[in-house]
Amino acid sequence: MTQRPATQRMDGTARRAQIRRVAAELFDASGYRETSMDDIAGAVGIKKASLYYYFPGKDQLLVELHEEMIDLIIAQQQERIDAGGHTNQQMLLAIMTDLIRLQETHPGHLKIFFEHFRELPPDVRASVRQKRDQYRDMLVTVLSDGTRDGSFGDIDVDLTAMAVLGMANWTYQWFRPGGRRGAAEVAEYFWSQILTGIAPA
Amino acid sequence: MTQRPATQRMDGTARRAQIRRVAAELFDASGYRETSMDDIAGAVGIKKASLYYYFPGKDQLLVELHEEMIDLIIAQQQERIDAGGHTNQQMLLAIMTDLIRLQETHPGHLKIFFEHFRELPPDVRASVRQKRDQYRDMLVTVLSDGTRDGSFGDIDVDLTAMAVLGMANWTYQWFRPGGRRGAAEVAEYFWSQILTGIAPA
Repeated sequence: MTQRPATQRMDGTARRAQIRRVAAELFDASGYRETSMDDIAGAVGIKKASLYYYFPGKDQLLVELHEEMIDLIIAQQQERIDAGGHTNQQMLLAIMTDLIRLQETHPGHLKIFFEHFRELPPDVRASVRQKRDQYRDMLVTVLSDGTRDGSFGDIDVDLTAMAVLGMANWTYQWFRPGGRRGAAEVAEYFWSQILTGIAPA
Repeated sequence: MTQRPATQRMDGTARRAQIRRVAAELFDASGYRETSMDDIAGAVGIKKASLYYYFPGKDQLLVELHEEMIDLIIAQQQERIDAGGHTNQQMLLAIMTDLIRLQETHPGHLKIFFEHFRELPPDVRASVRQKRDQYRDMLVTVLSDGTRDGSFGDIDVDLTAMAVLGMANWTYQWFRPGGRRGAAEVAEYFWSQILTGIAPA
């Protein structure tokens, strides 16, 4: 991690986003508990007092990292629902792409999301859990609607949702941005496998 | 967690296994860092000095939990290879079943395995990583051999291995032993989905 110079005239929203991004990288590289507010301030290139102005503590950073993530993918799927015109097979691909692309747009965040959920304050944990359920329900709806309209065969939608989430979310353990295959390519490959299977045609 | 009475005349191997099992449950329920050696001794129903006789510290417990897990699934697959007579499609089902069944035979272990790997001492981490790679290679071999003998179509074996591991390992986030579907049933359902897909026939 190289030290980042503090950018002049960065507005509050941009600064918060910058701090979240840098903190996520540090948490990912060194661990949440092992990373101090000092480390974060140093990596952002601001004084510790300035960091505390934006985030009263690491907990608040952890909360925002969780909420940013889940709010983003919910909004992406909601936009597609509102826009209309997608088949359920296309919706499934889009959801898988959204999830895997987080590894490129938010490197390190998903690891924090999955492994530090327990450390969120109870009220935030409840809110994040409710949104996770909401997102899973969005996926289940795509699978249910698609079963009715002939996009998918006669499937157990709950188990299929867990299979899809498993393929997509597990990328947090192995996918590295900038590698041989991009997120969209991996998503499309997984999607084609879950659609048509790996047995010979 | 109810307190367990210390069993009389338990031999060393059985006692170590009992301690590992109880510790895994506590780590899973309360977190690795939040669980003390006192908590573990109390839950097993032995004196703290006895616990230290078997495990000089929590680190050693974490090490054994990791090694127990990975050694077990490697041995299970190696036995099948040695026995012979399995098709590659059957081998794939067996691997997925082995992985998901860990949720029933070793509840809580997989969460520890995936989320506390970083906290292992470096030499142990290297050893566990090498065995994880060995296990992934066993899966890749099944997929490669199966592509050659016509069990599977023309697949990218490395990406397919990640899809399979994702479906199976992600169960650590949602599967609860004693629920509506057992591990073998979930494994068979996921296996049939990855084999033949969810698109209408």
